[in-house]
Amino acid sequence: MTQPYMIEKLGGAPHSKQSLRLWLRLLSCSMTIEKRVRARLAVEFDTTLPRFDVLAALDRNPDGLKMSELSDWLLVSKGNVTAIVERLIGDGLVERLADGADRRIIRVRLTPKGREDFAGMARQHEAWLDHAMGDLTDQDFETLLAGLQRLRLSIEENPI
Amino acid sequence: MTQPYMIEKLGGAPHSKQSLRLWLRLLSCSMTIEKRVRARLAVEFDTTLPRFDVLAALDRNPDGLKMSELSDWLLVSKGNVTAIVERLIGDGLVERLADGADRRIIRVRLTPKGREDFAGMARQHEAWLDHAMGDLTDQDFETLLAGLQRLRLSIEENPI
Repeated sequence: MTQPYMIEKLGGAPHSKQSLRLWLRLLSCSMTIEKRVRARLAVEFDTTLPRFDVLAALDRNPDGLKMSELSDWLLVSKGNVTAIVERLIGDGLVERLADGADRRIIRVRLTPKGREDFAGMARQHEAWLDHAMGDLTDQDFETLLAGLQRLRLSIEENPI
Repeated sequence: MTQPYMIEKLGGAPHSKQSLRLWLRLLSCSMTIEKRVRARLAVEFDTTLPRFDVLAALDRNPDGLKMSELSDWLLVSKGNVTAIVERLIGDGLVERLADGADRRIIRVRLTPKGREDFAGMARQHEAWLDHAMGDLTDQDFETLLAGLQRLRLSIEENPI
């Protein structure tokens, strides 16, 4: 399933071949899961991953977020957040509120309906992931979580 | 850095918490690398990841690919492949050729210039990955590659 397009071409650096292979495998796993989650969100909830992502960010922040803060919380797409929020407001899942300190600053938060709707989606989202990862052992989870943590630290320490 | 939006909410399934955490960590790593690779491709080669992805697929298939086959080889975006190929043809990096058996079927392949340009990009792409993953040990690579392989098998065995 991977398309190891340049795997044969060893560069000069020590890990060259391994880095590329790891990146392609990482991408293959995350693209596959993401694609299926998108499809299930569409079919079961008539919603999109960017919408789910915005709701998830607001669910984590019950006091609301400024629009600029919201972008930082998104995992998937930072594009057209404003348009997504506008539609969520129109659907009654999100509401605007004025900032306590500076009333010109607009914050957004989930409405009770938004919280409830999201809870249902989040449960299903977890169930899909549990299912897809059902063959992994506890040891597999530990190993992968620790390895990806090391990868993340390496990426942060060595910005490209 | 992760936005573990629903990590606290344990579902009924055995791995629930771990599955979600693993997915978020996976996504965080791959989104971070992808974002930086996109930025570097733009700055250093004035090109995009979907374009790079198409060139990589054609580089792996020296005899060319039918447009329908090309989509299957792409890792990143399956969207508007036709438009990307058209532009690559316009830039002299890709050329059309008629299929040997059925001349109505169009195949595309890299031109010599396309192959050369891609080789330069691929070298840099590998160097960026080597750099970003520079703090990983050989053992880390082995562990992660094996773990992600197990994850991929699990995803394939348990379609969501």
